[in-house]
Amino acid sequence: MPSRDTAPSAPPRTHRSEIRVRYAETDQMGVVYHANYLVWCEIGRTDYIRALGRPYTALEQEGLALAVSEASMRCHAPARYDDRVCVETTLVDVKSRTVTFGYRIVHAETGARLVTAETTLVSLDPQGRVVAMPADVRAFLGSAGAG
Amino acid sequence: MPSRDTAPSAPPRTHRSEIRVRYAETDQMGVVYHANYLVWCEIGRTDYIRALGRPYTALEQEGLALAVSEASMRCHAPARYDDRVCVETTLVDVKSRTVTFGYRIVHAETGARLVTAETTLVSLDPQGRVVAMPADVRAFLGSAGAG
Amino acid sequence: MPSRDTAPSAPPRTHRSEIRVRYAETDQMGVVYHANYLVWCEIGRTDYIRALGRPYTALEQEGLALAVSEASMRCHAPARYDDRVCVETTLVDVKSRTVTFGYRIVHAETGARLVTAETTLVSLDPQGRVVAMPADVRAFLGSAGAG
Amino acid sequence: MPSRDTAPSAPPRTHRSEIRVRYAETDQMGVVYHANYLVWCEIGRTDYIRALGRPYTALEQEGLALAVSEASMRCHAPARYDDRVCVETTLVDVKSRTVTFGYRIVHAETGARLVTAETTLVSLDPQGRVVAMPADVRAFLGSAGAG
Repeated sequence: MPSRDTAPSAPPRTHRSEIRVRYAETDQMGVVYHANYLVWCEIGRTDYIRALGRPYTALEQEGLALAVSEASMRCHAPARYDDRVCVETTLVDVKSRTVTFGYRIVHAETGARLVTAETTLVSLDPQGRVVAMPADVRAFLGSAGAG
Repeated sequence: MPSRDTAPSAPPRTHRSEIRVRYAETDQMGVVYHANYLVWCEIGRTDYIRALGRPYTALEQEGLALAVSEASMRCHAPARYDDRVCVETTLVDVKSRTVTFGYRIVHAETGARLVTAETTLVSLDPQGRVVAMPADVRAFLGSAGAG
Repeated sequence: MPSRDTAPSAPPRTHRSEIRVRYAETDQMGVVYHANYLVWCEIGRTDYIRALGRPYTALEQEGLALAVSEASMRCHAPARYDDRVCVETTLVDVKSRTVTFGYRIVHAETGARLVTAETTLVSLDPQGRVVAMPADVRAFLGSAGAG
Repeated sequence: MPSRDTAPSAPPRTHRSEIRVRYAETDQMGVVYHANYLVWCEIGRTDYIRALGRPYTALEQEGLALAVSEASMRCHAPARYDDRVCVETTLVDVKSRTVTFGYRIVHAETGARLVTAETTLVSLDPQGRVVAMPADVRAFLGSAGAG
């Protein structure tokens, strides 16, 4: 796996977000309720996009929303209250109207793989209609994967 | 659409909403995570307002949002997964720019008191500024308490 | 308690659960935040299992937990605040240690398809280890699909 | 305001937790849904307790749960998506069976006051019965307020 340290110009291909598990995120099984993993993926891609230099809030202010159109996940082992976990986010694909991110959620201390997931987001205009992303946004989102 | 204004008999002062506890609402203590009680209160007041004949969505479409500005609750006994609970909502007060609701959450089968709560909502315009509620909205919200 | 096993007519293969969209379930895009669709799927399969005559709570009390191990969904159109939606839940498959449900979330009034999803749950013992489901539980879960 | 720096032995009286607002925490009003502020308070007191040197998870493992029995909050200004906010948590009171925390949620950059809140937690044994806290736990929780 190439180290980001050796590629001074290319943005990192994988962004790591660290999250401390909240009590509110557990359920009575004593582990994290699965739907919350999708919330952590949202944090992962938000951080990924911010790390590219243009936060998602800026995209929304420019009139471009990215809405989840597809999501899938596999839960390998549960996250637990107060665990520190890492969401490793990568760009999988950018198309005219969609962008796909992949996620690997691991335990921050043990490195144990907890969840793998993928989400595809579709580009919407302020009226909620699917639209092509502006070329600069596509280039921007794809910039981390070019190195 | 029949007008509630012409109804000679007063609408009920208390509206009852029934909710089945979701697994997602529990935490690892094996009971409902407390912040969810405020979500149930939201359901209670939404149903209360709808029962008056003018759903909250209509208010928002007219440019009037009601945002929670104060909330308080006491948890007397926990709600548990799959319990059926009732939220009993009453109007406590309507002022120029605020409306206050009271809630009593009880177990639907045993009647046991679980939570008592109160929330005050402030009237906002589409820019998020505090504004006086139109007279008709005040009258409408207060109509159930007049009988 | 009457046994479902003796019922000559097959239970319905699809269970319909009706849900009113909560304000808490929306996000600033003005539609339902996608992770909540998985919560609705949980309601769907809980109701499905209850309709078979043995609520999920009984399974947990007997020491059998069903934890989501895989989930996927496609969002075709957004659900909005105060919408009434139907979750149509079907059993897709029962294996030794897993059970898979399919979901179709539609707008209750227009019938418009909003979300399709599938989740696989794995059978866990009280220590969280994957175990084979007891034969009677497998038969019970599969009973609706036999007709 | 006394500086914590001048009291070398006493633990800090106020713990600051920084949180980045999640998209999932917003609602269609374009701001944070109010019930989430209670989740942030939970983060605040968890961090407060951890900073004392004994994480809440350790208390639960010793058989002592702290459940919210009362909560109140005032919302002064809304938090928004992607904002960085600080939860300033202080110990208000420790009694035989309860502990009360106060919270001040401010915008991390502007310092603007967003929410003030207070929660009282009651000490429960593993069967969910209210019990007196062990003397060492009371001393531990109160240690930060002694300086």
